[in-house]
Amino acid sequence: MSLIADRASALDDADPLASYRSLFVTTPGVVAYLDGNSLGRPLAATGARLAEFVGGAWGDRLIRSWDEEWMDWPTQVGDRIASVCLGAAPGQVVVADSTSVMLYKLARAALAGRPGRTEIVADTGNFPTDRFVLEGIAAETGSTLRWLPAVSLDTVREAVSERTALVLLAHVDYRSAEIADLPAITAAAHAAGALVLWDLCHAVGAVPLSLDADEVDLAVGCTYKYLNGGPGSPAFGYVAARLLDELRQPIQGWMGAADPFAMGPSYQPAAGARRFLSGTPPILGMLPMREMLTLVEQATMTAIREKSVALTSFAIRVADELLTPHGVAVSSPRDPDRRGGHVMLDHPSFREVTARLWQRGVIPDFRPPTGLRVGLSPLSTGFAEVLAGLTAVADEL
Amino acid sequence: MSLIADRASALDDADPLASYRSLFVTTPGVVAYLDGNSLGRPLAATGARLAEFVGGAWGDRLIRSWDEEWMDWPTQVGDRIASVCLGAAPGQVVVADSTSVMLYKLARAALAGRPGRTEIVADTGNFPTDRFVLEGIAAETGSTLRWLPAVSLDTVREAVSERTALVLLAHVDYRSAEIADLPAITAAAHAAGALVLWDLCHAVGAVPLSLDADEVDLAVGCTYKYLNGGPGSPAFGYVAARLLDELRQPIQGWMGAADPFAMGPSYQPAAGARRFLSGTPPILGMLPMREMLTLVEQATMTAIREKSVALTSFAIRVADELLTPHGVAVSSPRDPDRRGGHVMLDHPSFREVTARLWQRGVIPDFRPPTGLRVGLSPLSTGFAEVLAGLTAVADEL
Repeated sequence: MSLIADRASALDDADPLASYRSLFVTTPGVVAYLDGNSLGRPLAATGARLAEFVGGAWGDRLIRSWDEEWMDWPTQVGDRIASVCLGAAPGQVVVADSTSVMLYKLARAALAGRPGRTEIVADTGNFPTDRFVLEGIAAETGSTLRWLPAVSLDTVREAVSERTALVLLAHVDYRSAEIADLPAITAAAHAAGALVLWDLCHAVGAVPLSLDADEVDLAVGCTYKYLNGGPGSPAFGYVAARLLDELRQPIQGWMGAADPFAMGPSYQPAAGARRFLSGTPPILGMLPMREMLTLVEQATMTAIREKSVALTSFAIRVADELLTPHGVAVSSPRDPDRRGGHVMLDHPSFREVTARLWQRGVIPDFRPPTGLRVGLSPLSTGFAEVLAGLTAVADEL
Repeated sequence: MSLIADRASALDDADPLASYRSLFVTTPGVVAYLDGNSLGRPLAATGARLAEFVGGAWGDRLIRSWDEEWMDWPTQVGDRIASVCLGAAPGQVVVADSTSVMLYKLARAALAGRPGRTEIVADTGNFPTDRFVLEGIAAETGSTLRWLPAVSLDTVREAVSERTALVLLAHVDYRSAEIADLPAITAAAHAAGALVLWDLCHAVGAVPLSLDADEVDLAVGCTYKYLNGGPGSPAFGYVAARLLDELRQPIQGWMGAADPFAMGPSYQPAAGARRFLSGTPPILGMLPMREMLTLVEQATMTAIREKSVALTSFAIRVADELLTPHGVAVSSPRDPDRRGGHVMLDHPSFREVTARLWQRGVIPDFRPPTGLRVGLSPLSTGFAEVLAGLTAVADEL
């Protein structure tokens, strides 16, 4: 065995979270799943839990389950995400909608909450849906988008002013995995009187967060990556307690109304986080993430982050050894404190390489123009798996 | 056996769709489930199908399933609803979001599609979420809501004018089950140059529709009632082919963009119905309705409507015999051509009666102030079940 294989083996042996891997569905023919940050693997228990739900809460209790439990799921599951992953007290998070819709609702709420301010600060490198949604909002509200060329405390400080209503940034960059300086940027936006909306899609479940302590205003995130909620599982939205009764979102559906079943003549927003709901919440889609939150809680975000750093550090080490000789560049920060749960590699032929890798059961993500993104979901990924995957990349180059 | 019990038995014996009942989960302790129009029963096959999905498309194919199949689900499942239930050609329906969110998107798209027109016509008796969403839209767009006191061709004709951008009405009233005169009202709105958005929540899967032939512009509906999609399953939205490239919706998420994975610098709406998508579609939530659509297709909407009429007619007959002596009023139309898939009964004590009925396994819905709503999902409800349920109501009175 090579030195690097010895290292992978030693890291797997010493991994205190190694036993969690057996709790996920394994996939014959998949040598390395390096895309858990696009779609997390299901837990092995999830299939049976869904079947049990169909026979039980749905089939046996029928409509009664809405009264008995489901009405509270959006806030209960939200509170669990808050406590396990977000560093947030109860009552500030709801689970509903898709990330794009939740982003729209919270960004619109923020603009309405800062009347007279007409600028939105965002960065050109953010995930498309964030930029696209903001473009639409700017057009409909007559706001101006002020684009940052890069995310840093300096660029934000320079951009915000008494005209800024909202700053929208990603906590972990979907390409580079660079972690933004959330506390400092939040404070800089606040100093200008603006609200900040953080996109936590690539952070939640991989990087510990302390939204309350950092005085974050608003946040959104998705649950199908590191929270293993399944394809299209609902998003979450966080609204700081101090803003809950001040802000109003534009999609005034019955589930966000004070008393949905009063069926009254006009909309009165619910107190607290429920007012950020709109339609009937996607109950089935919340089931898988509930199981995963239990595992994350057991493992603790601290231990998950430790393993995440070990995985990405090892991936960079392997890339340095096996891939840089082929001209591959490591595009993620080398400082682990500045790096989220994935590693971005760049090479001009990665579009074709990724297609061939998929054929042989090595599954990273391709991100244009030249990025191969290595997503390393801490509870379901092993070090030997990382090595096997990146060895296949070297082969294909 | 009483005459009415003989009649129930004869109707069950003669029911050509009786065998479908065995395909649904049965619930020990539930004597009569009269709320399939709030939450349809699961199919007996649904639990196993979900478990199979977890091990297969999700767990085995992992992220590859997005390329292999899931990207097309919102339009494919939409096309099936279109063909099986809506009388609509392919390419006009997407499955996504909740009904409230889809309603918001289509109503906003309609307003933007009729620039210079500032009135929205709606009725005070519509389901709360429809009215609430419109209130919010009116406030944000500076439009005026013109409320109809009742839904009829005359009230609509009187209300629409060259100022009307949009008419939003329910096809089947959620309380009375009265069927609106969709073709005539649509034509009246068109004569005034307005667009019409039909809420089909209480129609789809119970009443045959011909959206294309009736020249409907826009429609929304939910899938957890007569399409048995499960709690919070996603909504559908219909946009007539002639409007697809003209209208734009406000929540410009990546899944509605022309090429989501190009991750380009700015939003270009997809061609066709996809532009009405926003975020990542709720795949898990689309699974149960797919099975149900197969059953509806086999049974045919014509036969389903025949059974639906027989069920509601029988319920009214039982009510006349057993409940009117207790002062109960039948609030649904007696003409079956004007009645959807449920029957509304009113009595001052129905709030308390409903609570007691639930205790004894008879499950209708209560709708304030005094309504007991008897929902009769054609494929899963039997005539003896209707009699047992209404006999219990008589007991409780």
